[in-house]
Amino acid sequence: MNETAPSRERLASVVPAVDAVARQLAKLPGIGPRMAQRLTFALLKRDKREIEELIVALSALANQVRKCSACGNYAQTDPCPICQGQGRDVTVLCVVEQPQDVSAIERTGRYHGLYHILGAALSPIDGIGPEEIGVTKLLQRLKDPIREVILATNPTMEGDATALYLQDVIKPLGIKVTRIARGLPSGSDLEYADETTLAMALTARSEL
Amino acid sequence: MNETAPSRERLASVVPAVDAVARQLAKLPGIGPRMAQRLTFALLKRDKREIEELIVALSALANQVRKCSACGNYAQTDPCPICQGQGRDVTVLCVVEQPQDVSAIERTGRYHGLYHILGAALSPIDGIGPEEIGVTKLLQRLKDPIREVILATNPTMEGDATALYLQDVIKPLGIKVTRIARGLPSGSDLEYADETTLAMALTARSEL
Repeated sequence: MNETAPSRERLASVVPAVDAVARQLAKLPGIGPRMAQRLTFALLKRDKREIEELIVALSALANQVRKCSACGNYAQTDPCPICQGQGRDVTVLCVVEQPQDVSAIERTGRYHGLYHILGAALSPIDGIGPEEIGVTKLLQRLKDPIREVILATNPTMEGDATALYLQDVIKPLGIKVTRIARGLPSGSDLEYADETTLAMALTARSEL
Repeated sequence: MNETAPSRERLASVVPAVDAVARQLAKLPGIGPRMAQRLTFALLKRDKREIEELIVALSALANQVRKCSACGNYAQTDPCPICQGQGRDVTVLCVVEQPQDVSAIERTGRYHGLYHILGAALSPIDGIGPEEIGVTKLLQRLKDPIREVILATNPTMEGDATALYLQDVIKPLGIKVTRIARGLPSGSDLEYADETTLAMALTARSEL
């Protein structure tokens, strides 16, 4: 018996075009080679128009979505609709790690200010320092009319360290700095918090 | 407290193009709205060329893959490479439920005959009778030089019923009919069997 676990090669189907799609899907997080092949066959089994619709959506994703030059969030306009400020409270700036955190906070319906996306949390062990999270760019945004900065980095070791660091550099500017309340379970990901918990955390934010 | 579970609407991000891709991905089996959004952000975070590669692969899937008019398997040529018969034993026909079952059997490297894909198993409760699995088309293929039909439908109630039915209509033609051995765990899906088990089942097939 010298059988080995099925390698990616051995998972090949008999249709090269199927394998090509499966290989691309298997690059995504949480999708292994078997699931990728299963998804590809599921696509084939549907109406071809559904594959075309996915292609159209992906083309728009590749061609129309870029980062807002002001906040760093993904958007189809520059500046993004939120940075354009219509109906937003432009005196409050909420700092998050990732674009998907903006979506999570928007879904609570409790926040109407602006955002700033760091793209990462401080993590010296991974070589991510203040320069990598664009602290200079953030500080440039902190002038009139910004009166409060809400630090909404993840309630993790890295997110807390980032908040602590930002508090130290922002408070001397005379701007109110708050941190979302630790209603979120520690060590979890802001992206996956339920709306109620996240809304509580926003409401109970405390001045640092 | 009248909070409800997050609906698809409430999972919207702030970028319409992101939501459009996520909506398409969420139609696939095993991918919920949250995972779909996560996958879309993962796509955005990578090199845009990777999205383009996925688009190219999906276009080939939609435009180049069709069903082989002989066996019913997905293929980029008609007849498919296997039905063209080069290097194949054209005296043996293996009957399976789904195209992905062909890939599973090919991966064992133990079978070199032809295939026939039913597209489904008999299931009266779902309105799937002999006509829906194309029995007439299958019987038309059963002439010289076919000497053996291997029934490799899933070892499930529907798959067994289908094998029993096919045995009844094929044996009177004087063709040897075999069933893959029940080395496969009962109630499981042929598509997910490991190569060793599937190879054993092929080797130990018994005449009906």
